[in-house]
Amino acid sequence: MTYCVGILVREGLVMIADTRTNAGVDNISVFRKLHLFEAPGRLVIGLASAGNLAVSQSVLTLLTEGFENPKTGETERLISADSMFKAAQMVGRAIRQVHRVDGITQEQQQSGAFDVTVLLGGQVKGGRLRLFMVYSAGNFIEATTDTPYLQIGEHKYGKPILDRSITEQTDLYDALKLGLISMDSTIRSNLSVGLPIDLLVVRRDAIEPDLTYRIDETEPYFHDLRERWSAALREAHQAIPKPPYRMSSDGSEPGD
Amino acid sequence: MTYCVGILVREGLVMIADTRTNAGVDNISVFRKLHLFEAPGRLVIGLASAGNLAVSQSVLTLLTEGFENPKTGETERLISADSMFKAAQMVGRAIRQVHRVDGITQEQQQSGAFDVTVLLGGQVKGGRLRLFMVYSAGNFIEATTDTPYLQIGEHKYGKPILDRSITEQTDLYDALKLGLISMDSTIRSNLSVGLPIDLLVVRRDAIEPDLTYRIDETEPYFHDLRERWSAALREAHQAIPKPPYRMSSDGSEPGD
Repeated sequence: MTYCVGILVREGLVMIADTRTNAGVDNISVFRKLHLFEAPGRLVIGLASAGNLAVSQSVLTLLTEGFENPKTGETERLISADSMFKAAQMVGRAIRQVHRVDGITQEQQQSGAFDVTVLLGGQVKGGRLRLFMVYSAGNFIEATTDTPYLQIGEHKYGKPILDRSITEQTDLYDALKLGLISMDSTIRSNLSVGLPIDLLVVRRDAIEPDLTYRIDETEPYFHDLRERWSAALREAHQAIPKPPYRMSSDGSEPGD
Repeated sequence: MTYCVGILVREGLVMIADTRTNAGVDNISVFRKLHLFEAPGRLVIGLASAGNLAVSQSVLTLLTEGFENPKTGETERLISADSMFKAAQMVGRAIRQVHRVDGITQEQQQSGAFDVTVLLGGQVKGGRLRLFMVYSAGNFIEATTDTPYLQIGEHKYGKPILDRSITEQTDLYDALKLGLISMDSTIRSNLSVGLPIDLLVVRRDAIEPDLTYRIDETEPYFHDLRERWSAALREAHQAIPKPPYRMSSDGSEPGD
């Protein structure tokens, strides 16, 4: 499994990804899932992937080394995209190409479904800062002001804190902090999501990363965040009064 | 979908269940999923079910009206169980009987998997207060002091708060409160889990319910709990300092 989240606020973009891959609980490894594509001053794109690692790596290789666009006959690389929308389309084409080559065999051999999902966020100079989620069919959706974050992989454990706290107005580094809390909840509940964590912060219109960073087991801030968050949750529920419910006197089933 | 949670602490047992069923998002209904079996002074048992409603209702009917134990030839009813372990076995037999009658046809017609899970908690006089989860194969597991809660249905959204907060020492009505927070997180994130909520509290060795209650939309405590919890979470993350990370000067990918 995997957990990656992208958050798009007014000030910028945050992307966070864990690094654990597993082929069964007895075979876990560390692989980077968050990748940076950067052409200084022209574009900055973060790409995070979840799903089958062979598929993810093939897609990443096509996007990095280039592959032919069947319509134009030209070789395309993600770094050459001239808009974020075209970048998302290119990711979709790369996924479909991997499906044609490997996915059909994989499905015929029933060695698991063809399964990859990509978060793609960033900005091309002259365009808007955008965040997309590309599905294994190659189609995609975009984060909006109503729903300013997108998740891939094991999304459920870390969703409540985002649902309650993230809006378009959230401060950029508060968004990073909330993303890390969301990651912490996921790591606690799902063994197949694990440290180290990679992160990327991009300020709107800066066309360069504001921060790229890897958090490992020894990192003091994340350790402190986990402790503080646990303590704060304990205090938070302790501050809520106990339920005042009393048994109704007629002994009926509740609500009957 | 469904969300039910059972929590077994030193002082007693809490069981909480939502009431929403759905056959697609365009067809939702309210059905009680938490049921009380009570023989005053002799036993008190709560039963909550998740999964296919036809299966759950058939299982419940067998347990209520009685069905034949093939080994003894006797008709058994849950209310007659003389231990919680035998009650769990009886639920397992009821599930297997429904599988024999309806489940095989259902699987042949590929009209969905045979799918039911049951939480069974309570105490028979002379025995211990216990909490079981019975699977659709009819086998079961039991909550222990290491893992004092069990969940069925949509368990992920509501698990982090339980993982962080519930221990065997938790006060009984704090356990109820934490269960309601867990339910709130689930309701917020999954449309197929909804109010009203049924709950049951049983004190250890009391052999009677301490509380049975239904929370509906108009219920002030639960409304207040939701507001307070949201506010407390906001304060909790606001109190954590922002990430202090700075870009390393060499511009390398993080962690490389």
